[in-house]
Amino acid sequence: MAREAGTEALARLAEERVDHRFKGLPPDATGLTLAELAAQRRNLFTDGFTTPVLALSAERLEHNLKLMETYADRHGLAFAPHGKTSMAPLLFQRQIEHGAWGITLAVPHQVRVARTYGIGRVFLANELVDAPALRWIAAELAADPEFRFLCYVDSVRGVELMDAALRGTARPVDVVIELGAGEGGRTGVRTEADARAVADAVAGVETLRLVGVAGYEAQVPGAAPEPVRAWLGRLVALAAEFDKAGRFAGAEEIVVSAGGSEWFDAVADVFAKIPELSLPVLKLLRSGAYVSHDDVHYSRLTPFNRVPEEGALEPAFRLWAQVVSRPSPEQAFVNAGKRDAAYDLDHPVAHMVRRDGTEHPATGIEVTALSDQHLWLGTAPGADVEVGDWIGFGLSHPCTSFDKWQLIPVTEADGTVVDYIRTFF
Amino acid sequence: MAREAGTEALARLAEERVDHRFKGLPPDATGLTLAELAAQRRNLFTDGFTTPVLALSAERLEHNLKLMETYADRHGLAFAPHGKTSMAPLLFQRQIEHGAWGITLAVPHQVRVARTYGIGRVFLANELVDAPALRWIAAELAADPEFRFLCYVDSVRGVELMDAALRGTARPVDVVIELGAGEGGRTGVRTEADARAVADAVAGVETLRLVGVAGYEAQVPGAAPEPVRAWLGRLVALAAEFDKAGRFAGAEEIVVSAGGSEWFDAVADVFAKIPELSLPVLKLLRSGAYVSHDDVHYSRLTPFNRVPEEGALEPAFRLWAQVVSRPSPEQAFVNAGKRDAAYDLDHPVAHMVRRDGTEHPATGIEVTALSDQHLWLGTAPGADVEVGDWIGFGLSHPCTSFDKWQLIPVTEADGTVVDYIRTFF
Repeated sequence: MAREAGTEALARLAEERVDHRFKGLPPDATGLTLAELAAQRRNLFTDGFTTPVLALSAERLEHNLKLMETYADRHGLAFAPHGKTSMAPLLFQRQIEHGAWGITLAVPHQVRVARTYGIGRVFLANELVDAPALRWIAAELAADPEFRFLCYVDSVRGVELMDAALRGTARPVDVVIELGAGEGGRTGVRTEADARAVADAVAGVETLRLVGVAGYEAQVPGAAPEPVRAWLGRLVALAAEFDKAGRFAGAEEIVVSAGGSEWFDAVADVFAKIPELSLPVLKLLRSGAYVSHDDVHYSRLTPFNRVPEEGALEPAFRLWAQVVSRPSPEQAFVNAGKRDAAYDLDHPVAHMVRRDGTEHPATGIEVTALSDQHLWLGTAPGADVEVGDWIGFGLSHPCTSFDKWQLIPVTEADGTVVDYIRTFF
Repeated sequence: MAREAGTEALARLAEERVDHRFKGLPPDATGLTLAELAAQRRNLFTDGFTTPVLALSAERLEHNLKLMETYADRHGLAFAPHGKTSMAPLLFQRQIEHGAWGITLAVPHQVRVARTYGIGRVFLANELVDAPALRWIAAELAADPEFRFLCYVDSVRGVELMDAALRGTARPVDVVIELGAGEGGRTGVRTEADARAVADAVAGVETLRLVGVAGYEAQVPGAAPEPVRAWLGRLVALAAEFDKAGRFAGAEEIVVSAGGSEWFDAVADVFAKIPELSLPVLKLLRSGAYVSHDDVHYSRLTPFNRVPEEGALEPAFRLWAQVVSRPSPEQAFVNAGKRDAAYDLDHPVAHMVRRDGTEHPATGIEVTALSDQHLWLGTAPGADVEVGDWIGFGLSHPCTSFDKWQLIPVTEADGTVVDYIRTFF
C-alpha cells in the first residue's frame, strides 16, 4: 500500500506545473506540466532556458547508476546509497531499480520525503532522539509491516530518550551501534567498552532491537588506506564479538554497514572477510556521491582511482551561466553564484565557452571567488570570453550542488532535455 | 491587474499544505494549510516541531522593518531592499508596506517570483543579456503599464545583446550605467570614459532608455569610509555630468542608486549632497540583509555601529538543532549542518541550551566545523550539554541562511509560532 502510494506520488511529480518555483526553465513553458515539457524535448541551449541553469547528463547518470550496481554485486555488498546527496525521489527510484537494497538518509525530514515516494527500506545514519520524529517513525512502522527502518545509537542517554518517546508503540525500532572512527572523529562510541554499554542499554528496553553495527570510515582521523582498514577491522570484530555474545539474538540478520564515497574499495575488501556469523549478514554500503559524481573533490578521492580496472565514475553535472560583465582584460563575471554552485570544498571549474552555437575550451578562465549571485572569473591573456557567452562549469561536491536546485533538467549529449529531476531539501 | 493577481498569489501561500516539502514542521500537522497551522498558534518547543528548525523572531523582524523604513525616510532615500536575501514574497510585501519603493533583485528568476506576487517596481542589480529572459521582461512591461523595471548596463556589447533581444518590443527597458567600484572590484565600468561609451551605445538604440547611474560601494577595494565616500562621490559626479550632457533627456526622473548593508550611512551622507539636477532624483538605497540581520558578519559591519544614535538592527534568526551525539567530553554533534546553516562567512554561534523546558547559556560550546548534516561542537570543561538538548544558534549571513529553508516559522518571544514565511530559491 505504501509502495502504491509512493508510485502515485512519483507519477504526480511529472504533473507539477512549470512556474516561478523553478530556476532556469523557459519562461514560455510556464503552465506546462513537467511531463508535457519533457515531451517537447527542448534543447537546453536554444529553446528558451534561462541562465543560470544546472543540467545533469542523462548518459553519465545512467553510467554511474550501473557502475555502482555492478560494483556492489561483484563484491557481495548490499547497497543503500545515501539519499541526502540528491534528495530526489526519481533518483531514489532509479537507484532501487538498479538493485539498491534501500536508501540511507541523515535526518527525519529526509525519511518523510523517502516514505512519501514509496521507499520501503531506510537506513538513518544518525542517532534519532527527536520525540515527535520518533513517534512519526513508529506510526509508519505500525501502518506498514513491510517498512524496514534502522538507525544509529551511540549513547546510553540516546537509548533512554528513544525508549521514552517510543514507549507503547507496536514494533520495536531496529538500531545499530555506531562505532566512532577514532578520537576527534565524528559521532559514534569511542571504544568497544562504550559500544557494549550502549548495547546493554538497548537490550534493557523493549522499544529497540539491536541488529548490527555501523560507522563512517571517512571520518577516521588522518584517513588513509591503513587506518581506514584498521577501523573497518574493528567494526567487523565488534560485530563478531556481539554475535558471539548473543547480542543479536532477536534479529533475522546482522547488519554491518560502512562506506561513503572515498573508501568503498577498503569496505569491500574488509567486508569480504567477515567470518561466518550465527545469522545471515547484510553487508551494507552507503555511498551517495557517485550518482552525479563531481569534477574536483570526488574525482580526486574516488576509490576507482585505486582500482581503475573496476571502472570509472563520470561527472554528470554541468552548470551553465552567462557572462554579464567583462569589465577588464583580467576579469569576467557570470550570473551564477553561491545560490547556484557548490562552494564548500572547491570552486567551480570553467570547462567550456559557448557562443552562437559553438563551443571552445575555457582556456585561461578560472573561478577566483563567489558572491551570492556572481562567480568571479580571472581571465589570462588570450582567454576568449565575452559578455553574453555561456560558460559550462564543473562542480565539486554533489551534496551541495543538488541542494541549490529544486528542479534539474536531464540532458542528452546534444543538449536535448529528456527529463526533470525534482529535489526536496 | 498584476497587483490583484499578486495579492491572490500571496493569499494562496497561506493555503499551501504542510507536507514533506518543508523541514522542521510537526509531522502531525501534515495536511493542514499553513493558515490553519498558524491559527493553532503552536509552540516551537513543545508542539511537535522537529529538529533542525530555523525560526525568525516576529518582534525582531518587525523592529528591523520599521528601523530601515525610518532610516530611509530620515535621510530622504527611496528604498528598494535587495530581495535576493530572503526571496520571500511575504517579506517583500511587508517591506512595501513599510514604505519601500520596490524590490531589488539579482537574476531574472527572482524577478519572476516578485512579479508572481505583485511587486510593481523592480531594480535588477545586474546586466541582463539573456534573450529569453529579456523577452519575458518585455512581455511583462507590455502587459502591465504600471510595471517599473530597471537594470544595469556596463558594456557596449551588453547594450547590443539587449537591443538584439528586445527589437520590436513595445516599451523600452530602463537601464542605469553601473559604475564599478574600482580596479579588481566586481561588475561595472571601470572608468567614466567607459561609462560615456556605454551611455552612447544606449542612446543609439530604441529598445533601451538611460535613466540613471548605480553601483555597489561594498566592492570598493579595501572598503573603508574614505574610499567608499570617494567612490560614491564619483557616482554622484557621473550622474551630474550625464544630466548636464542631456543624457537623461528621455527620463521622468534620474535614478542614483547604491547601498548594501555595510555602508548605507556613507550613502545617506553623500546622496544628501546630490546637487539639483534637471529632473527629480530618485536616490535609491538597496540594503537587503537588514530584514533578518545576523549574529556575526553584519552585526560587526552594520553602519548602525557608527551611528548608534540612529538605532540598532536585531538578529532575528535562531536555528534550533538537537544534540544527537556526545562521544567525548570535548565533543558534541547536533543534527543540523551545511544544509541548514549559513557557513560561507562564519560558523554558527551557539547561544543557548534548552533542556526539559528550561534554557541556560551555551557557555563553553563552540562550532568547530560543519558536515552536510552535522555541526561539530567543541565543548570546554564544564560545558553543560547532553544528548537530546536543543541548542539555539545565531547565524552569519542572512542570504545563505534564508536559502536553506523553504518555509520558516515566525515565532514570538515565548516560542508561539504566529506565521510561516515561504521562500523561493
